[in-house]
Amino acid sequence: MFELVCEDEKSKARVGKLYTKHGVVETPCFMPVATKGSVKTLSTAELEELGVTALIANAFLLYLKPGLEVIEKCKGLHNFMGFKKVIFTDSGGFQVVRKDFEPRVSKRGITLRSPFDNSRHLLTPEKCMEIQNTLSSDVAMVLDECPPYGLEYEYYIKSVKRTLDWAEKCKKAHKNENQLLFAIVQGGIYPDLRKLCAEKLIKLGFDGYGIGGLSLGEPKKKMLEVLTRSAKLLPKDKPRYLMGVGSPEEIIKCVSLGVDIFDSSFPTRNARHGTIYTKKGKYNITKGRFKDDFTPLEEGCRCFTCRNYTKAYVQHLFKVNEMLGMRLATIHNLSYIHDLMAKIKRAIRNNEELENFLT
Amino acid sequence: MFELVCEDEKSKARVGKLYTKHGVVETPCFMPVATKGSVKTLSTAELEELGVTALIANAFLLYLKPGLEVIEKCKGLHNFMGFKKVIFTDSGGFQVVRKDFEPRVSKRGITLRSPFDNSRHLLTPEKCMEIQNTLSSDVAMVLDECPPYGLEYEYYIKSVKRTLDWAEKCKKAHKNENQLLFAIVQGGIYPDLRKLCAEKLIKLGFDGYGIGGLSLGEPKKKMLEVLTRSAKLLPKDKPRYLMGVGSPEEIIKCVSLGVDIFDSSFPTRNARHGTIYTKKGKYNITKGRFKDDFTPLEEGCRCFTCRNYTKAYVQHLFKVNEMLGMRLATIHNLSYIHDLMAKIKRAIRNNEELENFLT
Repeated sequence: MFELVCEDEKSKARVGKLYTKHGVVETPCFMPVATKGSVKTLSTAELEELGVTALIANAFLLYLKPGLEVIEKCKGLHNFMGFKKVIFTDSGGFQVVRKDFEPRVSKRGITLRSPFDNSRHLLTPEKCMEIQNTLSSDVAMVLDECPPYGLEYEYYIKSVKRTLDWAEKCKKAHKNENQLLFAIVQGGIYPDLRKLCAEKLIKLGFDGYGIGGLSLGEPKKKMLEVLTRSAKLLPKDKPRYLMGVGSPEEIIKCVSLGVDIFDSSFPTRNARHGTIYTKKGKYNITKGRFKDDFTPLEEGCRCFTCRNYTKAYVQHLFKVNEMLGMRLATIHNLSYIHDLMAKIKRAIRNNEELENFLT
Repeated sequence: MFELVCEDEKSKARVGKLYTKHGVVETPCFMPVATKGSVKTLSTAELEELGVTALIANAFLLYLKPGLEVIEKCKGLHNFMGFKKVIFTDSGGFQVVRKDFEPRVSKRGITLRSPFDNSRHLLTPEKCMEIQNTLSSDVAMVLDECPPYGLEYEYYIKSVKRTLDWAEKCKKAHKNENQLLFAIVQGGIYPDLRKLCAEKLIKLGFDGYGIGGLSLGEPKKKMLEVLTRSAKLLPKDKPRYLMGVGSPEEIIKCVSLGVDIFDSSFPTRNARHGTIYTKKGKYNITKGRFKDDFTPLEEGCRCFTCRNYTKAYVQHLFKVNEMLGMRLATIHNLSYIHDLMAKIKRAIRNNEELENFLT
């Protein structure tokens, strides 16, 4: 299901191919976030034009709305949202770090509050598999416990035990041959716990491995240290998915540590706040100096926005609250990330220095 | 500048061609509203795909933001917003019926409050021409006074006098050979005032004639009565533009009374509230019965939305507040109106009954 195409000679960076029922994902790959079944402001036609081969949706929120009955009748999320490429679904476990879901974790699973009607829902490993099975995503994630950064060591021990127990239950409950199942390595910032968690999960055997519980407020150095160790623990012939990361700088760094798959709401959320990504760094389009700047968002960019619109116009749209502004910025940022990933892949194949891309 | 192609044998309906610097507008024509320089949620590429040949922007709001300096540097609104077809600009006079602009009318002109910073601005006929000249729209509208429905007869006398005085001043001040100038007939619901206003404006001579001050709360029968008389007063060889109207039913009716051009924020605003236009009437997409309806918004429709998405998905987007929902509904409604106008034109050429389209 995963083919390792080549590895960089100096770093741990690798190029691979993840085979799924909806096509091949070339890695390293960045997935935009379609939390509620839509990458905010964009049509699926635009995603395809942007070269998006995989996205990630939130299984718990889709379970609440429109609900499994609707998605089942429609024969899965691909049909429902009109996206023909690869869909990952998360387990809902990540909501544990989101206080507005009022998460309560027990041995049985995670109870979460619906943001729509305040009803409470227990996500067990089995329920989690049932939901993702019905969504018919190409890659399902196991239920894990993702505790916030900064708790006591003892808590992470307990949480790793739960994560392992749930992973085993998920594997047993998972019966969908058309769907890959990825486990998630937890363990906070503790090397021993990360090692324990990874080894046990590998023994259980999954189609790929998520690395969770990072980028939650821990020092960046710590995060990279944990990641370096974690990546080494994971089998070479399986894809490694660093969940919830992130910025162009982080992506480049983490690719060089051996990560294959990323997702983050950053490029799209930043776009909706006017932050524009470019090869020369970020800027905010609402800044005064762009008021009469009739050049594209990024010189030389070939995205729809840069081919058709100027900084001055995009700024205007933001200043007068026209939704088209968010959309044009989102298109550009995803195009930037797509180009970045393409360059990263090229560089790995050619044994070039990855770090060079940011300057 | 306007060519009358054919007239219906039974009704007053007509097919025409309005020649402008940015191409020909075939009439009867409906213009979507791009108040602040964007048809809400849509890109100009989508407008072109929808077959939009003309739109109308709000000169006063664009004067405030981004301001004339920016638009002038950019060499006009077409370049600024990236729209290659025909742009109409209104005068700002219509804001008189909008209380939030705190309009004050005097002999000199209209003072309006900026919704952006509460500053007050006097629009004189000359200022109004200067603004629209700088915007470089294809069709500019004179400054008129558009009083609300239901005032005393005496007020409308005064207001017609002002409208005539301002129209004359606008004509004098208008020096842009690349821009057509339309006058606006006012006079409330009073036949004598409408007649007076129309005759004097025709004597001054304009490239086209707007019919203003209608659809402001007066009984529909009254509105059609006024319109029937007004249309008869206007020269056959000039386009007639009924401002701010409206619904598919009204458009069909008013075409049969001899109106050539329409604009309204209705189809787009309705779309953003989930109201979908179809040949069989309107419906709201958020209604429960569409929850698991996997057919397109309208059976047989060839718009982008109907080709790619289902009622159930569009409903879902509205229910979870995803902006894409508004956008998909807007595309469909504008596509519906475009098809309606195309059928109306065909019917006039073939001397068919216009009223048949709604059933």
